[in-house]
Amino acid sequence: MILTVTPNPALDLTYHVAEWRPGASLRVEAAIVRAGGKGLNVARVARQAGAEALAVATRGGRTGDEYADELAVSGLEHRLVPVAGATRRSVAVVDAAGGETTIMNERGAAVAPAELAAFTAAIRDELDRADCVAASGSLPPGIPASFFADLARLAADRGIPSVIDAVGPALLDSARAGATLLKPNRAELAETLGEGDPSAGARALIGLGARIVIVSLGEEGLLAADRSGRSVFARLPSPLKGNPTGAGDAAVAAAAVCLAGRESDLAVLARRAAAWSASAVLVPHAGELDPSFRELENSIILDERP
Amino acid sequence: MILTVTPNPALDLTYHVAEWRPGASLRVEAAIVRAGGKGLNVARVARQAGAEALAVATRGGRTGDEYADELAVSGLEHRLVPVAGATRRSVAVVDAAGGETTIMNERGAAVAPAELAAFTAAIRDELDRADCVAASGSLPPGIPASFFADLARLAADRGIPSVIDAVGPALLDSARAGATLLKPNRAELAETLGEGDPSAGARALIGLGARIVIVSLGEEGLLAADRSGRSVFARLPSPLKGNPTGAGDAAVAAAAVCLAGRESDLAVLARRAAAWSASAVLVPHAGELDPSFRELENSIILDERP
Repeated sequence: MILTVTPNPALDLTYHVAEWRPGASLRVEAAIVRAGGKGLNVARVARQAGAEALAVATRGGRTGDEYADELAVSGLEHRLVPVAGATRRSVAVVDAAGGETTIMNERGAAVAPAELAAFTAAIRDELDRADCVAASGSLPPGIPASFFADLARLAADRGIPSVIDAVGPALLDSARAGATLLKPNRAELAETLGEGDPSAGARALIGLGARIVIVSLGEEGLLAADRSGRSVFARLPSPLKGNPTGAGDAAVAAAAVCLAGRESDLAVLARRAAAWSASAVLVPHAGELDPSFRELENSIILDERP
Repeated sequence: MILTVTPNPALDLTYHVAEWRPGASLRVEAAIVRAGGKGLNVARVARQAGAEALAVATRGGRTGDEYADELAVSGLEHRLVPVAGATRRSVAVVDAAGGETTIMNERGAAVAPAELAAFTAAIRDELDRADCVAASGSLPPGIPASFFADLARLAADRGIPSVIDAVGPALLDSARAGATLLKPNRAELAETLGEGDPSAGARALIGLGARIVIVSLGEEGLLAADRSGRSVFARLPSPLKGNPTGAGDAAVAAAAVCLAGRESDLAVLARRAAAWSASAVLVPHAGELDPSFRELENSIILDERP
């Protein structure tokens, strides 16, 4: 089972507008409502690909009720730890005229020490039957930057691989904790290390202690590197058009599915992560792959560097 | 007591962004959440001005729970009729860089016949102790265009004045039903009658059966007209800068407070409605007046036409 951890989940509201006109009063259909947050998206994708997945997250307030309603309907296995602060919202506006999606992400309510303890206890509890743990996203106030690193250590103690999708101090701490796989994108790597070159950035994280690093590069595919010094660029012959929201989560899901099956060959990881990531671009919302995701794996071009 | 009726209430979410950049992922503070809908705003303003007000509206789903929570905290007297469809959302984005507010209004879920009957029964019930009824806003599917007109007749049968803020067939029907006061704005009047001139439009509605018509004219103030053939323009010496959301609701509240006190002199109505409307512009959200609203009445310039 793939255990996904979402410390800062969100009630995702998506609106479609014919044309965003600043200052206008626009009539819209009711929002499309989904339980969101990166870890949730990872679990949905892993499940779509046939893997068993369990999503652990917090839940609070009226928005948390609505979030739990949607999760129950989705059929995704989940365990929600109650917290006092209301689950945050994330509002996406898809503008048909402009062709772009603009997202407003609420910061997230603070988590109290006792709530963090309950959340961690739930994760520990489920970790015992996990084949891989994937933890993603931002941290709300009250959850320390060391949270992902602590989780990577907890997993390592049990011989369970960990995949961490984080940024800044949380990314650095996870590398130092010896996380199995880190998945920043180019901008997150630059923000965290001040290093614009993906290969050099990946090497730096491996130098700190990470085993494998996948750097997603948007339309250029991704770079995977490991401790052996090997690195692989993976990309489609030509990029697909669509909505990049959730592409990174699809790459994390691909990596988690590989590692859960004890597959850690860099070429296999890179090919699958690049294909799933690209197929997520074809779907307008996060947490779902286009049905072509398996065939796309055959189209991936690998460029191996020693 | 002023009874306000809101057939299509909304959970209002307001976001403040530093700069709306299409395609960006923006970090925002948690939304400011308020129980909204024009009738709710009218009741809040009437209450702020010292009048007793009761808001009757529907309530459904998780958004309805959140809406009811906020109303309970607000202290506004209310009666909510449960419906199966979830209370709609309205999302306002206040862009600091652009200086404008863009609003996305969900259409509203359909109201079933039995729910409409329960809503109407609740209104009838409360009408018996009302001094004035004010009904405002859009109608969700399942509530007929004749709803406001029926309400105006119901009130008239009891000798209670009615204030209707509606558009299109609902506005025309209300005029034919002999509503005491109608409050379209210039654009709504043009949309309903194909008549761009406010005086001619007001005369047309009076010709159909309305007793008094107030046409709000934005920065130019407003025009009030009645059956005697009298008409009054009311405006500030110079317009105030701010957020026009809720200015129309403030004018409706002013009219309702006058009529509830058996005051129907056109000059008094126009002065108060113009002042309250202008003072609502100084407040960034609907349903509240700037504390200067009473002094503003003294600054209003009246221009009477025979």
